[in-house]
Order: sequence, then C-alpha cells, then structure tokens
Amino acid sequence: MISIVILGTGNVAKHLFDAFLAVDQVKILQVVGRSQKQLLEFSKFTEVTTGFQQIKEADIYLIAVSDDAIGEVSGRLANNKGVVVHTSGSYPMDSMLAIERRGVFYPLQSFTKGKKVDFRKIPICLEATLQKDYLLLDHLAHLISDQVFHITSEQRKTIHLAAVFVNNFTNHLYKIGNDLCTEQHIPFELLQPLITETADKINTLNPHEAQTGPAKRGDITTIENHLGLLKNKTQKEIYSLLSNSIKKDYEQEL
Amino acid sequence: MISIVILGTGNVAKHLFDAFLAVDQVKILQVVGRSQKQLLEFSKFTEVTTGFQQIKEADIYLIAVSDDAIGEVSGRLANNKGVVVHTSGSYPMDSMLAIERRGVFYPLQSFTKGKKVDFRKIPICLEATLQKDYLLLDHLAHLISDQVFHITSEQRKTIHLAAVFVNNFTNHLYKIGNDLCTEQHIPFELLQPLITETADKINTLNPHEAQTGPAKRGDITTIENHLGLLKNKTQKEIYSLLSNSIKKDYEQEL
Repeated sequence: MISIVILGTGNVAKHLFDAFLAVDQVKILQVVGRSQKQLLEFSKFTEVTTGFQQIKEADIYLIAVSDDAIGEVSGRLANNKGVVVHTSGSYPMDSMLAIERRGVFYPLQSFTKGKKVDFRKIPICLEATLQKDYLLLDHLAHLISDQVFHITSEQRKTIHLAAVFVNNFTNHLYKIGNDLCTEQHIPFELLQPLITETADKINTLNPHEAQTGPAKRGDITTIENHLGLLKNKTQKEIYSLLSNSIKKDYEQEL
Repeated sequence: MISIVILGTGNVAKHLFDAFLAVDQVKILQVVGRSQKQLLEFSKFTEVTTGFQQIKEADIYLIAVSDDAIGEVSGRLANNKGVVVHTSGSYPMDSMLAIERRGVFYPLQSFTKGKKVDFRKIPICLEATLQKDYLLLDHLAHLISDQVFHITSEQRKTIHLAAVFVNNFTNHLYKIGNDLCTEQHIPFELLQPLITETADKINTLNPHEAQTGPAKRGDITTIENHLGLLKNKTQKEIYSLLSNSIKKDYEQEL
C-alpha cells in the first residue's frame, strides 16, 4: 500500500485524485488546499485540510499547484519524511531546494474540468534524486498508467515546449479556422472530422510523411489566393510564415 | 439506381470509389484515368479506360483529379448528357465553363492511401447550377454520408483556407514537435495522447474556450524560457507569432 497526500485542488490534482481513488494499492491520506470550497468535492472521499501544520506523514507528497507556487509549497514540506514530487512540465526538479527526497511525477496531458480521460494511456514522466524513490514513483505510476517514462529535467523542458506547439498552438489554429468559418456562416462542425483525422494520421505516419497541402506542393497560385482571402493581418502573417516553413522542409529534399 | 463515371485514379477517386461500391443504389459504370497501371486496381470491380472517346453515358461524372487538370477534363465532357461535378475544395464551380449541367461534390477530408475512413462522418459540400441536379447530388451524397451541406463556391474557398490552417499547418506543428523531441532523444509517441486530446476537446468546447498555455496566461517567464530553448530561427518566429496572436485574443477580453 502506498500512502499519498495531494497538495492542490485544480484540474491536475482532481484528475490524479480520481485515478488513484480507483486503485486499491493506493491510499490517499489527505488533500491539502487553500480554499475550503475547492476542497469540498474531495472531502467526500478523504480527509482535507487548509493547514500545513496538519499534514500527515505519507510515502509520497504530490504537489499539483501552479508553477509559481511550487517553491513555497515544497518549502513547507521540508520536515516531512516522504518523497516530494511536483507534477509540472516546466519546473526543474532541483528547484525544490529545501527537499532532499525530491522527484517529478508529470502526467503529459491537457486536463479539462469534468472531462474524463483514460489515464492508462497518459504518459507519466518520472524523475527522482534517489534511486529507491524513483522505483517507488515508477511503481505508483504503473498503477494508473501503461506509459511510464524516465525523463530528465532537461528533456522535460523540451517536452513542455513541444507540447506548446502541438497543443496550445494547434488549438489556436483551430480557433482561426473557427473564426474564418464564422465570418462566412459556415458551421465549424464541418472541419471536425478533418481535425480528428489529422491528429489520427500521425499514429501511423510520421508528421513529415503526413504533410499535404499547397505549401508542400509549392502551389503558389493557391497560396496567393488564400492570402488574398485573408483580411486579418496576423492571420496573413501566420499563413505566410507557416507556408514558408513547410516549403523549406520539402525544398531541402529536392 | 444512379449511374456514375469516375474520372481520376488518385486518393480521392479511390476513396469515393470504395464508398460507392458498397452502395446498392449506385452503379459505377467506369473509371477513366491516364495510366493503365493506376487503373488496374479499379478494373477488378468495373470497366476502366484511358480514352475520353470511350466514356459511357452516366447520370453523374465525378472528376477527382488535381485542380490544374479539372479545366481540361471537364472540357472533354462537354458533349455528355449527365451532371459534371468536380471534387475540389478550391476550384470554383463556374470555372467549368464548357459544362451546362455542372456542380461540385467536395468531400471535406484528407485522404491517405490505404487508410480507411468512415465516410458516413465525412462532410460532403454540394453545389449545382440546376436545382434538379442539386437534388440528384444530394441523394447521391446521402447514400454514403450523414453530413451533407449546401456550400457556395465562395464559402468553399473559405472552408479550403480554414482546412489549410487546421490540417496542413497543424500537421506542421506536429512536425516541429517531432523535431524537438528527436533532438533530445525523446520518443514522439509521448506527445500522441496530448495531440489526440487536443483534437478531441473541441468536440465539446469551442477552440476559444479550450485554449490553455503560457501565452493565454500571459506567462512571460515561460515564454522567454521557451524562446531560449529554441535554436532554429523559423521555429522561434513561429513561437513568437503564435504566442502574440493568442495573447491578443485574450487581452481583448480584459
């Protein structure tokens, strides 16, 4: 049985809480948060507290708070005995200076409130200073996911950066697609099967092979027609920059 | 029974062929192509020809060739009696000047050779000059898809442009994510659940609501760290431009 305390009440905290709650070999001793209101939904299943003085002894402390708050929260755990891990993509492990037994337990997914995810498919990126702690985290991670990886803080930085490209920026392209459709009274739903297929395709092809479109073909006429259609200056800039970047990738092959 | 002739042997032609082959109410009389070799896989199921002189009389002629070739191919069909439609996202219907009974039958999807798609979910965008032809196309489209839309040539231009953003450009962002991972010896598979979830999310949230990340939060520290990590000049430009574009969207709300 692994005992854990979760610090934080946001999306990551809630999704991890739900995943661990479903596992017999894990006991969630406590959830720690700043707001009684946010703690309410956890209190049906375990103990909750707003006070750092009341924190229980546990095997693992999971910090699931915003990056800005990790330093302070981890500092408060300096006298506890268990391993202290944060769940952030970009915060370096060694920045939790006050903690000797420190680690990272980073689930690589974008969580949305109220939207269930299949945790077994979510990659969990692990790191720890001590090998025995790494093994404990590895054991814990495998209880909820089939995708567990050893990732250094340096690699994690790159993963987080790559995630910004494939998640945040991709979503922004969807947003531009949505705006263009709205202007012409076209339901955005029309684009959804294409969006799904685009994401699905790279399970079987690598993105370089999967590329299609006017920029890849070097179809200047279509590119100019598209730029002519775009009224918004930023959209034009994005169209040009991404088209040129695609063109460059395929010109190199000639 | 609707009789059709398909002109073209590429991905769109092949996927439409497969979809119509599975429908009792459609008879594919012929597939017309330039290369005997490409026609081979169709010849097991229907007649094939490389000669425009041998084209049969049909209710509908489906042109599934590259945009550059639509003008020439449609011109050769000027003396046939059926409705002539092309399947392109960007080619205006009225550019098929020689054809009186003209229309568009545009399946909005990115087809990959050998990768099956569920045609019932693929939006089909229809247009025709004559109402009776529109009704025929509408009937034909519903035989293979549940998503049939009347879309003008003007709207279709915008859809095609929006598709470049959500498909071609999105795939390019995946490619950058892949490159970043490769440099740091991180398996790209780690990002795939995130990519799937990002695409899936906009089935329930609109992309504006679904946006997350440092640019939306105005988290300058993370943005600067990311720009510091990027070595490639074009990747830096893409990161800055997209981050600024996201920032602008959310600043307007303050």
